[in-house]
Amino acid sequence: MSDLPKFVHIHEEGPREGIQIEPRNLPVSDKVRLIEAVAETGVKQIDCVSFVNPKRVPNMADADAVARAINRKPGVRYTGLWLNTQGLERALQLPLDVVGSIRVTASETFSIKNTSRNIEETFAEQRKWMDIYRANRIAVEWGYVMTAFGCNYEGDMPVSRVLDMVQRVLDLAAEYDQPLKGIYLADTVGYANPLDMERRLGALRSRWPDMKIGLHLHDTRGTGMANVYAALRMGVDQFDSSVAGLGGCPFAEHKGAAGNVCTEDLVFMCHEMGIETDVDLEKMIACARLAEDLFGHRMPGKVMHAGSLKNMRRAT
Amino acid sequence: MSDLPKFVHIHEEGPREGIQIEPRNLPVSDKVRLIEAVAETGVKQIDCVSFVNPKRVPNMADADAVARAINRKPGVRYTGLWLNTQGLERALQLPLDVVGSIRVTASETFSIKNTSRNIEETFAEQRKWMDIYRANRIAVEWGYVMTAFGCNYEGDMPVSRVLDMVQRVLDLAAEYDQPLKGIYLADTVGYANPLDMERRLGALRSRWPDMKIGLHLHDTRGTGMANVYAALRMGVDQFDSSVAGLGGCPFAEHKGAAGNVCTEDLVFMCHEMGIETDVDLEKMIACARLAEDLFGHRMPGKVMHAGSLKNMRRAT
Repeated sequence: MSDLPKFVHIHEEGPREGIQIEPRNLPVSDKVRLIEAVAETGVKQIDCVSFVNPKRVPNMADADAVARAINRKPGVRYTGLWLNTQGLERALQLPLDVVGSIRVTASETFSIKNTSRNIEETFAEQRKWMDIYRANRIAVEWGYVMTAFGCNYEGDMPVSRVLDMVQRVLDLAAEYDQPLKGIYLADTVGYANPLDMERRLGALRSRWPDMKIGLHLHDTRGTGMANVYAALRMGVDQFDSSVAGLGGCPFAEHKGAAGNVCTEDLVFMCHEMGIETDVDLEKMIACARLAEDLFGHRMPGKVMHAGSLKNMRRAT
Repeated sequence: MSDLPKFVHIHEEGPREGIQIEPRNLPVSDKVRLIEAVAETGVKQIDCVSFVNPKRVPNMADADAVARAINRKPGVRYTGLWLNTQGLERALQLPLDVVGSIRVTASETFSIKNTSRNIEETFAEQRKWMDIYRANRIAVEWGYVMTAFGCNYEGDMPVSRVLDMVQRVLDLAAEYDQPLKGIYLADTVGYANPLDMERRLGALRSRWPDMKIGLHLHDTRGTGMANVYAALRMGVDQFDSSVAGLGGCPFAEHKGAAGNVCTEDLVFMCHEMGIETDVDLEKMIACARLAEDLFGHRMPGKVMHAGSLKNMRRAT
């Protein structure tokens, strides 16, 4: 027995995170094949596409075609990411699950570089989204605070700034009478360490004892799974992750980039500790191997290469 | 502030662990170049070679030449690994630091496959080593229990078996009047998870409250750094690790193999949490990149590709 959560909820981010950064693009049919395979694993939400400038992210130029081609499995939500109202309007026209969210960035500089908007402009943009959600009767589920641990332009993110951003997100949700499921903290560029994770989660829990917290952790510097464990110990049961560790890339132009923590490694660690996920580990491993085949290079996931312990134990 | 240790001691295992499994062998001069570079990082002990059957491990056929070619830096210990008395006798003839140890394997089957000796025969062999240590006035420093978490032949290792093996190692050391520094548990094939780590360390601490514990953790299934963090939280301050994550291998013949936790990722995580190591992170990253250059393929280490946060913070 332990105080760890009994169940961990996973949002699969690999198809979007991975495809948008991979140097080699895939045909629509292969993208859909990966998404549909992941949908068979038991994961309940898959981020499939982003609606972004195709000049900046050419691999997502076919986002509409991908969204339309998915053979949807009942019970699974197929989501997309947008960074502005045009993207949101595009998503609304497609057979996607448009899940309302409030997305802000703790680092002003990162916000400007990533979305061409500073923090105040971001909140103004979020109000437009909130209006659109209301007009379309879309529930807002989570608030996201990006670069909540640090960023490459502003360095370590003060905890006070993160608390302030969370407060403003909660206020905005309340103003629109949208009760959030909780707040996601994103370690966008790999600043988190387990001790800092405990400090930040502690600060949030101290101010909002009953608020659910989700984590979007890029494993840029090898601490991803340790950060997950630190968070599990503090009761966090909601994670984004990326099949095969998609999102990292071995090519020079993205040399330092790294994907979210790897889905099947996360699932393996949870199951080994007696935490359920509803994800079929063997099927997720097969998806990771499919991703490796489709993209044609070795992926950073570990369990996908070593295999789970199921067959090892069966043989003993 | 935290209850984490203030200082972590690292034994570098990469040159031995990595070179013995890499499909492409290196000339002696390149092996020595890597070892000498690692010696400049502040690491105090480097495992350089193993004395094993060259038919089974052809890359170690030149172990004697490597040991002789190292330009030794004062204050650094250059060690080797042997699996039998012949290997130990060989090591004694070389300019290596012969560090006494007791090495047993909790899994009888793994012991037989790896060393052609069952557990009783292993203890008999250890007595021969103890005699040689005594004859050469060599102190015995650590007892090692391999497959202390599980093995591919016998599955999960019962905690009672691990406790029994530790007791027998301690008894043997006491019989020879060799006070051990402590006991190393090795997760030889990647069975450990953080919760199980806490359970096993707890069982050892409960029986031997003052015994130092070291860990040799292969990151076979992605839980390596989470296991390290679980152990740090319980006060463990002694780890083996492998520069660049050497020991893993992307080639089919060793598809599932994986090296120890990656040295520079471990050092990065420690430093970020305020734990000293005396290792210069930037120099260790340079060693990892040297290893990648020498072996000619991408290594699993993360910080070596992303860079540390030092330059990021300096720029902010």
